Amino acid sequence: MAEENAETRSEAKESKYRFRENDNVIFVGSKPTMSYVLAVMTQFSGGTNEVHIKARGRSISRAVDVVEVVKNRFVNTAKHTIEIGTEKMHAENNMDINVSTIDIKLVK
Amino acid sequence: MAEENAETRSEAKESKYRFRENDNVIFVGSKPTMSYVLAVMTQFSGGTNEVHIKARGRSISRAVDVVEVVKNRFVNTAKHTIEIGTEKMHAENNMDINVSTIDIKLVK
Repeated sequence: MAEENAETRSEAKESKYRFRENDNVIFVGSKPTMSYVLAVMTQFSGGTNEVHIKARGRSISRAVDVVEVVKNRFVNTAKHTIEIGTEKMHAENNMDINVSTIDIKLVK
Repeated sequence: MAEENAETRSEAKESKYRFRENDNVIFVGSKPTMSYVLAVMTQFSGGTNEVHIKARGRSISRAVDVVEVVKNRFVNTAKHTIEIGTEKMHAENNMDINVSTIDIKLVK
């Protein structure tokens, strides 16, 4: 349940972020991997050359899946750079918890 | 269940691998994060300067957690480089499935 909330909150934050970042950030949550692959491909087809794929917590492995599927099946020449980090999040029981984050920059 | 088997198999493979690689590879599976953090710190205390933290599938996010905990709490000066990839695995129903992998090199 805490995870659900975190996801929702981060997607809300993300939608603001996307306007600032000119729509080239894809925040990976709990949808199927192929939804995010499609989002990346839509960005690339729309003329964007650089997409950031971001995730935190347990979604990190899905973000890696997204990048691998895009590279292996659709854009073989794409290059990536990966950054990881930690974010403090406010849990329901008023405790601060640390959550790992990943930001994969994928360049067509 | 398939995941369980994969974990067991990869840990078996790992133990062979560790002899070859001079014990500096830690394969992250389903144990608690701190078990792997301890394993990294044990390597570092034993004189190893470079540790590879490897994982696949859903354990990838735990591997990132391990690196973040080591860097934030124990070895602030550590540097990492990250590689991701895809491995073909043989599932129970005789299908080949693709699994994402991560290899994080952590240098003290």
